[in-house]
Amino acid sequence: MSRGKICSLEWMNRPLRRGVLATKLRHCSRNARGVQTASDASINGDQEEHDLCNWDELKFSFIPTDYMYVMKCSSGESAFSQGHLTRYGNVELSPSSGVLNYGQGLLEGLKAYRGDDNRIRLFRPEQNALRMQMGAERMCMPSPTAEQFVSSIKQTALANKRWVPPPGKGSLYIRPLLLGTGPILGVAPSPEYTFLAYASPVGNYFNGPMHFSVEDKVYRAIPGGTGGIKSITNYSPIYKAITQAKAKGFTDAIFLDSATGKNIEEATACNIFVMKGNVISTPPIAGTILPGITRKSIIEVASWFGYQHALPTFDQIEERAIPLEELINADEAFCTGTAIAIKPVGSVTYQGQRVEYKTGEGTVSEKLCRTLTGIQTGRIEDTMGWVVEIE
Amino acid sequence: MSRGKICSLEWMNRPLRRGVLATKLRHCSRNARGVQTASDASINGDQEEHDLCNWDELKFSFIPTDYMYVMKCSSGESAFSQGHLTRYGNVELSPSSGVLNYGQGLLEGLKAYRGDDNRIRLFRPEQNALRMQMGAERMCMPSPTAEQFVSSIKQTALANKRWVPPPGKGSLYIRPLLLGTGPILGVAPSPEYTFLAYASPVGNYFNGPMHFSVEDKVYRAIPGGTGGIKSITNYSPIYKAITQAKAKGFTDAIFLDSATGKNIEEATACNIFVMKGNVISTPPIAGTILPGITRKSIIEVASWFGYQHALPTFDQIEERAIPLEELINADEAFCTGTAIAIKPVGSVTYQGQRVEYKTGEGTVSEKLCRTLTGIQTGRIEDTMGWVVEIE
Repeated sequence: MSRGKICSLEWMNRPLRRGVLATKLRHCSRNARGVQTASDASINGDQEEHDLCNWDELKFSFIPTDYMYVMKCSSGESAFSQGHLTRYGNVELSPSSGVLNYGQGLLEGLKAYRGDDNRIRLFRPEQNALRMQMGAERMCMPSPTAEQFVSSIKQTALANKRWVPPPGKGSLYIRPLLLGTGPILGVAPSPEYTFLAYASPVGNYFNGPMHFSVEDKVYRAIPGGTGGIKSITNYSPIYKAITQAKAKGFTDAIFLDSATGKNIEEATACNIFVMKGNVISTPPIAGTILPGITRKSIIEVASWFGYQHALPTFDQIEERAIPLEELINADEAFCTGTAIAIKPVGSVTYQGQRVEYKTGEGTVSEKLCRTLTGIQTGRIEDTMGWVVEIE
Repeated sequence: MSRGKICSLEWMNRPLRRGVLATKLRHCSRNARGVQTASDASINGDQEEHDLCNWDELKFSFIPTDYMYVMKCSSGESAFSQGHLTRYGNVELSPSSGVLNYGQGLLEGLKAYRGDDNRIRLFRPEQNALRMQMGAERMCMPSPTAEQFVSSIKQTALANKRWVPPPGKGSLYIRPLLLGTGPILGVAPSPEYTFLAYASPVGNYFNGPMHFSVEDKVYRAIPGGTGGIKSITNYSPIYKAITQAKAKGFTDAIFLDSATGKNIEEATACNIFVMKGNVISTPPIAGTILPGITRKSIIEVASWFGYQHALPTFDQIEERAIPLEELINADEAFCTGTAIAIKPVGSVTYQGQRVEYKTGEGTVSEKLCRTLTGIQTGRIEDTMGWVVEIE
């Protein structure tokens, strides 16, 4: 081992086995680790894209794909450069890197959808780029430019396009990461950074309506904290609350605001909307909830696009603090997020009391979901300029 | 690349170049990344340990040493096994690992000290083991047993013993990490875990007394959160506050409690003590401050050991909420932590007002520091059973 090499993250440069891509079939299966994997079998090349995976059994779990995108910002530099696709595989990292020792990292999540026309579309990737930039500023990290970010996502999606599921079967989830990868011993920002984007075909994050418990002891975010950005540090601290909720049979937990303990904020990985009478309400973006791109799009769809399509029967959308009692007394509730899309809330349980909500045909969430996924997959015309066709 | 290999973290198995250890001298220098590195030069083997590094210029920055310790807990298992020393170097990690995507990781920090008798001692390593176990429980991770933890630290210190600085020049800082290294796509605990311990010789974390600003907008911890454990997620969220404090010429920032915004909690990487009249006070362990091992030891030294040595002129130690005004009006204040040891507070600045404190000869912190470091380095008899001599 060369001691001088230790300080930098170096990516594995494995030779590309090009022949493999055109001559193999991988069947998805679930291994002992709970991770979907793919096993090799020779196939007819023409069938490959459709037979690559058992698309009907896709879950929201990790299936390794062919390529990932890597870009670095070296010590003393303020910009990312030399971004490139490389074969998906393990990365080599300094044990003293900022992300492993002090959690300096951001994530993003977006999806590539295959439409009935077989075209592949991204949804508002520039919004993810901007959110990563905001997060990077908060976490004292340099960030890729929006152009670099969007280009990396397009390249990652196209390089893995055989993994984009057939229409209606799921989507290709793309996970960009921005990580402090330089070595640092004291508590301070890392001297080097790596941007990485990998992809996995996914199905539903949850099946059916969501059934929530209300978490009133553990808070997800704090004023002045990182709840409003997609920092990796926001997630593992709530594992215990999620695990306890799931152990009691709930889909997930709803978190309350830490300042008062009275208002709903969001769930583990999605924003929440409440409908009462003709008003849809959702908590405001004020630093403690994630500014969700699906959240933002649903507000815009409902406010503007909705009128043209005579969609829901509501008068207005409000972004405001929502006391837990309003959720309890709502007619309908739903959650939004890139991973989950738009999901109805089936029930909320608080202090042993369970309330149920309308779900399914005829609900506002069902109509909004149909509209948004229609735009995302090309079935409904995109008059907002949200969709980026990449093939 | 074998697709089937992707799901597991695999460590680099570089051949040990045993001859190198006995025939090389490494001079510390600072490279463009701000990381101290070592360059090779042939030397007389007998001189090696003393001439390995320019010990007089040690800072608290990362210098790679010879070996690290690695131990794994594989998917489906609840215990760590197969721990072993390996050459220090980069680690190979899945891009979809829990630590990189959701910050699932814990750190620890402890030191090996070389005494005037040339013996090497650890200080209460079982306390770090217990703290890691508590943290692991909170973060839904399995943890090494206390025996495994302490054994790994002994082995790491001994394998790198030539990097333990001469008496009075510094110490060998050992950094254990417990990381979620299995691949996971949804927000949930990792299926695999890795324990890792590496080491670096270090000098002072800060030079001279500490000069603090009071951070009254960003909070470090939240009730029900992870402030009471050594989660990697506690640190990067406060980088911005630290960076802003340093940019204004302060050593560090003091954080207030998020529940009331009125009581002092701790600084970036150390606990705080306040002395007024004959009373020493420090914030209580209640989930939002780190249960520091130096903090605990100082309380015990001051309470019990102090009497025998007629040390400080104080009557009692109190663990209680301390309003910021009490810090402002204190006679003396000091901080404790493994990295910083015991450091006097020179000044605190709040809303533009700066107050200064007694430091140096004759202060309580100076006496406590001399006592504790005396015990740690073998100059003062260890009647508490705290010191573990490893050579």
